[in-house]
Amino acid sequence: MAEKFISLRNLQFLLYEQFDAAALTKYPYFADHSKETFDMVLETAMRMARGILFPALSVMDKEPPEFRDGKVFVHPVAALVMKACGEGGWIGAQAPYELDGQQIPNSIMTAFRGIFSAANYSASVYPFLTTGAAHLILSFGSKGLIETYVPKMFAGAWQGTMALTEPQAGSSLTDLATTAFPTAEGYYRIKGQKIFISCSDYESTGNIVNLLIARIEGAPPGVKGISLFVVPKMRPDGRGGLAGNDVTCIGIYHKLGYRGAPITQLSFGDNDDCRGWLVGEPHKGLRYMFQMMNEARVDVGMGAAAIASAAYHASLEYTRQRPQGRPIAGKDPLAPQVPIIEHADVKRMLLFQRAVVEGSLALIFQCAQYVDLAMVTEGEEKEKYELLLDLLTPIAKSYPSEMGILSVSQGLQCLGGYGYCDEFPLEQYYRDVRIHPIHEGTTGIQGMDLLGRKVVMKNGKALFLYLAEVEKAVAAGRALPECAPCAEALAASVSTLKEVTTSLTGLALKGEIELFLADATLYLEFFGIIAIAWQWLLQAVTAAKALAASPDAADADFYRGKIHTCRYFFAYELPKIRGLAARLKESGDGLTVQMKPAWFD
Amino acid sequence: MAEKFISLRNLQFLLYEQFDAAALTKYPYFADHSKETFDMVLETAMRMARGILFPALSVMDKEPPEFRDGKVFVHPVAALVMKACGEGGWIGAQAPYELDGQQIPNSIMTAFRGIFSAANYSASVYPFLTTGAAHLILSFGSKGLIETYVPKMFAGAWQGTMALTEPQAGSSLTDLATTAFPTAEGYYRIKGQKIFISCSDYESTGNIVNLLIARIEGAPPGVKGISLFVVPKMRPDGRGGLAGNDVTCIGIYHKLGYRGAPITQLSFGDNDDCRGWLVGEPHKGLRYMFQMMNEARVDVGMGAAAIASAAYHASLEYTRQRPQGRPIAGKDPLAPQVPIIEHADVKRMLLFQRAVVEGSLALIFQCAQYVDLAMVTEGEEKEKYELLLDLLTPIAKSYPSEMGILSVSQGLQCLGGYGYCDEFPLEQYYRDVRIHPIHEGTTGIQGMDLLGRKVVMKNGKALFLYLAEVEKAVAAGRALPECAPCAEALAASVSTLKEVTTSLTGLALKGEIELFLADATLYLEFFGIIAIAWQWLLQAVTAAKALAASPDAADADFYRGKIHTCRYFFAYELPKIRGLAARLKESGDGLTVQMKPAWFD
Repeated sequence: MAEKFISLRNLQFLLYEQFDAAALTKYPYFADHSKETFDMVLETAMRMARGILFPALSVMDKEPPEFRDGKVFVHPVAALVMKACGEGGWIGAQAPYELDGQQIPNSIMTAFRGIFSAANYSASVYPFLTTGAAHLILSFGSKGLIETYVPKMFAGAWQGTMALTEPQAGSSLTDLATTAFPTAEGYYRIKGQKIFISCSDYESTGNIVNLLIARIEGAPPGVKGISLFVVPKMRPDGRGGLAGNDVTCIGIYHKLGYRGAPITQLSFGDNDDCRGWLVGEPHKGLRYMFQMMNEARVDVGMGAAAIASAAYHASLEYTRQRPQGRPIAGKDPLAPQVPIIEHADVKRMLLFQRAVVEGSLALIFQCAQYVDLAMVTEGEEKEKYELLLDLLTPIAKSYPSEMGILSVSQGLQCLGGYGYCDEFPLEQYYRDVRIHPIHEGTTGIQGMDLLGRKVVMKNGKALFLYLAEVEKAVAAGRALPECAPCAEALAASVSTLKEVTTSLTGLALKGEIELFLADATLYLEFFGIIAIAWQWLLQAVTAAKALAASPDAADADFYRGKIHTCRYFFAYELPKIRGLAARLKESGDGLTVQMKPAWFD
Repeated sequence: MAEKFISLRNLQFLLYEQFDAAALTKYPYFADHSKETFDMVLETAMRMARGILFPALSVMDKEPPEFRDGKVFVHPVAALVMKACGEGGWIGAQAPYELDGQQIPNSIMTAFRGIFSAANYSASVYPFLTTGAAHLILSFGSKGLIETYVPKMFAGAWQGTMALTEPQAGSSLTDLATTAFPTAEGYYRIKGQKIFISCSDYESTGNIVNLLIARIEGAPPGVKGISLFVVPKMRPDGRGGLAGNDVTCIGIYHKLGYRGAPITQLSFGDNDDCRGWLVGEPHKGLRYMFQMMNEARVDVGMGAAAIASAAYHASLEYTRQRPQGRPIAGKDPLAPQVPIIEHADVKRMLLFQRAVVEGSLALIFQCAQYVDLAMVTEGEEKEKYELLLDLLTPIAKSYPSEMGILSVSQGLQCLGGYGYCDEFPLEQYYRDVRIHPIHEGTTGIQGMDLLGRKVVMKNGKALFLYLAEVEKAVAAGRALPECAPCAEALAASVSTLKEVTTSLTGLALKGEIELFLADATLYLEFFGIIAIAWQWLLQAVTAAKALAASPDAADADFYRGKIHTCRYFFAYELPKIRGLAARLKESGDGLTVQMKPAWFD
């Protein structure tokens, strides 16, 4: 079994050297913190990940949740993780002091979640889904709702969930049918079914707090009639205890991977006695949900990057230990075999993984920094960070998710036949990572979000802000000889990005909306590659400057590896935009739109 | 559960309309056959696949082989398939009449194997591994060996295997350590271990016949000292019975997918009583094995294309039945939802799958045709087909294997969350198809084979023959208005192929062998995309001609679908060569070669 699942050195590089997280402490909200307290958080995460999560990685996969007599039983480690995170204050760590939070920056807690996800993605979901659900109540719920639910959730005693998807609707939220009937008692009666809800029922938690979207009876059709509710499995009985709330688990799904967490189908109000409490105002539920969804989507990207990180480190360890073959130039069959990491093609597979993993992590921390800065700034500056975050969220979700699959697959390939067998963790990572392009909005949905909404919103303001950021990186790269060729290549890519975007928005301006969006998934991929190139150039610039300051030997190797991986990305990955741009400039031909279903026969 | 796993209409299109398999009957060896007997073969395969293999797809995955008390127990369907194939004469169907064969062309039996593989890849392996092993004995073995083993294998009574890989050697055949000690009795004593051998032990067969490579004691080092042996699990006792042959199963592997077939680790000669019989001459074993390996590699490509076919048909069925969302142009939330196949992005995912599946199948049948033609022709013509087959084998193996993973993944994506769950077969296909870039030579090995051996052999003769074939397709495409744009694009790609190849072989000529081969895997991908474009143009030409002859409505839809999928391939897939070419022209920079292992820390 591999020992390492994530590089703490790299997390520290990104947080401190790249994104200067320590500078956040100059803002009052974070003023009690310092680099030292941040490091303590990271070290605690590593200790918990090594001690609790990573050792349970395989067993939670091999002993998945069971559904017996209407109840869901999960591996005992789930409750252990919830308890440890509750006691340590990690579920509510980002919340304000007055709500028992620790006011730790999102950047630092993103690293915390990444460490957990790399160690055992399924186990990490229990506490951090709870964080997300609790934040929704905190942001939009009444004082009463906050007091009833949030402390229990932050303590790890109650599990939080997000209940969105319905059988007949899938990604089409317009078609939500779960209904909330108003009552005179201040709550709503909920009736409907939800599917694919992570952690939404299991025995070893005190309660389940579902953040559920539904349509108040008589609400407008479509997404404008959706409201947000707290619908617990057990409701407070008014005497300090809990009573059943007519929420029934109908079944659990048997999944390819991500097996340590239960995904269930729930029925609400089979006996007309399911109560839900409105969060915020009626009909604004989707807006509330999407505020949280943005963070959830970046976390999905982190989950994928983290699993790919674990696969990278497992394959790196294997390729260092496995002797096989000889240098191409000296094929003497009597010479000893060399470790396979010496072969160029194996180095390529490792560089590919590192480029994907650390490029993805960089973009995710960039987004996490925007979250922090948007929180502590005002006015135009705040708007800038919010717009950049909005624009980059679909990329931070989908690039790691899609490329994570390929990255883990290359990790598996490094082990040959052993990678296909369960003696090594690669086959599990390969199964686990496949969930990410599906949950929290499929890749297709992200593409439409990027091109159809984010790029064009406010007359392209977010895009212009982003292009200005990229130009800054280009300028910084041009100033350093090690980085200048990559900076030039990025500048050329930005020109291509502008051309392609102009060509596509031209279709929209002509009213050809279907053609405009037909290749949105390809545009997402195209945009994503350039965004990761930007992040690699930024990392190379930071590394080149650090190298110039004569670091110690271990750090020097680390920085040289960064610069070389940046060169790899620009030589092997960035050129992929050429083929994508060639297609995207022709999107007006409507090739997929014209395909008739009957022709598939 | 999906009903359809492969399109018989498409197989008949490829066999008869594209590659004119019926014309093979003009050669004496195939003269007894006709299109009618070929169709009977295909229909029998479909009947057996529907009746025996496909219904067992999921259960063989859920009840994988077990290893108890040193014995391997597999699902009963394995024995059923062997018996049915033996009784029907399908294991030896390509062999000559005098050996109880049926002299059926390889093209037709390739379709037969493809139908089986699409229905249940694991189950298909039992009979067709036996075919491969029996053909090796037939081609190079003595009369005695043939008489002892081949009839039992053709009858499905004994299982055949190929035992190549060893724990310390992996892909490095140079390092084989299994040793054959000569005796005075005409056999050798075998000592050593083999790993990752499919179907190499299970109870419900009469015997296991391992075709094993080993080094005769004192043989030259390296691959030049490797010989081929028949090493049965039970050896003939000279009295018409069988006796133990000191072959011990040490264990079985627990695999990501491909779970219906056991893969074992075998120990030979623990008690110094394992006998092996030399096949052919000493030290020529690798050459013999590779003759069969070429066919095995094309079959691996077929296995991957077949699984991707099953995934394509399952996702096609789902997207036709699943209502979700509305046309982009008419977002009235009260309008009924449409089947998701109406959405452009879903059509794109289906077109991608069809392009991969049917493009791969076309290349595989092209190779199968070369096998048939090489068999019935002489002299220069024969050499031409052999060289084309040699050149294209690494592509026919690896393009379907690598792209099959992506194709199945897109099929899974079409089902969203359901694709990730075991209610639908996609998640199994996703696991099953991952074996193909590994077994019978990894993708990395195929890349080195293509660039380091096949492209340069006989001063590039195979490549020139291939380019002439592609030019013929270009000329045919230019003559038809529906095909002319694709023909032009293919012509341009051929120029790029020549440039890139010249640039790379330039490195070889300068003696920079490591740089020459450093990006061989990328060259394989680059070469493969162009080869599939060639096959799509050929299919579009055939379809366009057929359309001009006023076919019935169903056929017209089929041909229009072919032409549109060809356009899809040229618009979305072929442009990928741009990025690859950009990198391959820079291979001389040695980017991966220069990466130091220490920099990965």
